[in-house]
Amino acid sequence: MSNGGEGMGRFVTLEGIEGAGKTTQLAWVRRVLEARGLEVLVTREPGGSPLGERIRGLLLDPAGAGMAADTELLLLFAARAEHLAQRIRPALARGTWVLCDRFTDATYAYQGGGRGVDPERIAMLEDYVQGPLRPDLTLLFDLPVAVGLARAGRRCAPDRFEAEAAGFFEGVRARYLALAASSPQRVHVIDAEAPVARVSDQVERAVAAFLAGVGR
Amino acid sequence: MSNGGEGMGRFVTLEGIEGAGKTTQLAWVRRVLEARGLEVLVTREPGGSPLGERIRGLLLDPAGAGMAADTELLLLFAARAEHLAQRIRPALARGTWVLCDRFTDATYAYQGGGRGVDPERIAMLEDYVQGPLRPDLTLLFDLPVAVGLARAGRRCAPDRFEAEAAGFFEGVRARYLALAASSPQRVHVIDAEAPVARVSDQVERAVAAFLAGVGR
Repeated sequence: MSNGGEGMGRFVTLEGIEGAGKTTQLAWVRRVLEARGLEVLVTREPGGSPLGERIRGLLLDPAGAGMAADTELLLLFAARAEHLAQRIRPALARGTWVLCDRFTDATYAYQGGGRGVDPERIAMLEDYVQGPLRPDLTLLFDLPVAVGLARAGRRCAPDRFEAEAAGFFEGVRARYLALAASSPQRVHVIDAEAPVARVSDQVERAVAAFLAGVGR
Repeated sequence: MSNGGEGMGRFVTLEGIEGAGKTTQLAWVRRVLEARGLEVLVTREPGGSPLGERIRGLLLDPAGAGMAADTELLLLFAARAEHLAQRIRPALARGTWVLCDRFTDATYAYQGGGRGVDPERIAMLEDYVQGPLRPDLTLLFDLPVAVGLARAGRRCAPDRFEAEAAGFFEGVRARYLALAASSPQRVHVIDAEAPVARVSDQVERAVAAFLAGVGR
């Protein structure tokens, strides 16, 4: 479903496992959009609002290792509800494009594909919190788990998600690819194993195609 | 619905607005139950688990005043999911009685009756998090809002809920009484305006009647 009525901003999300290069490419997408004269809000999940960032802190804290799956899911959607109410919906309503580092696809991938939470339970909370709102365009940065983890390993201490076993990330990646296969209009798979310049080219083409499709 | 299979503990909750005397009476219910040789776990909501207490901190923080209604509801049920998984369900399963200071009735009363959240939305999360689990016995400590607030006012700085206007608490009280009217088998209304000794008498009678009903 498109959220873009006349004068509305569009909702663009970036997804992918650890080490996929989302942060670098997010800055690039922003530049591509701003070069077209669009106003852009850059944000991220979990978090995105002051309270959401505090919830993010609870979620990523390695001390939360024994958290129940339901608890994690409800905290994620609590942060998402706040993010939508405080930032995303107001921005879209005033015509600003929203560029978000991870959104509900990540919940399907990490909690569903990674932890084995029933996707029906995720879908219930998705409908509960978002109503009909879905991203207009999603860029999925895909690469082999081993490559992503090796890249991410160069960074500092792992958070609670990064400390998961490689098998977990295989489940995450597989679910991400399944989501892309079931929503080919919305989700564009980017080969994130390529050199940065080639990844940026793929991103630019996907964004340009989307802009053309919405008459920008 | 009763949760009490053979060898299972029973789930008893105490409800009421600020200043209703729940804390005093909770200690009394515990003594009444323990005098019958029952093992009792005393706990509270929101909170009840280490992570739940951190979520409680987010919920009660006066800085969270602008929190979206959905966010508050999801945080409450996140803490509840953790509380159920870590403490309540394991206790009931090993035959321990659980005595909880506030539970989901408080969500209907505060978020529903107080803030005007659609009770259907609360019911959806209740089913999501609890499945069929409901308290076996609920003691509702009822008193006029002005009396309760005057009593609570003698305590220290108000938290975010206590700082609400009196009209809010009228809505809370009315919803509590409506819940009692719709579940007379489960919810016993205690006149909490009476002197403490008379409140304790009412409590003891209600608990004794419940114990007789379950063959204790």
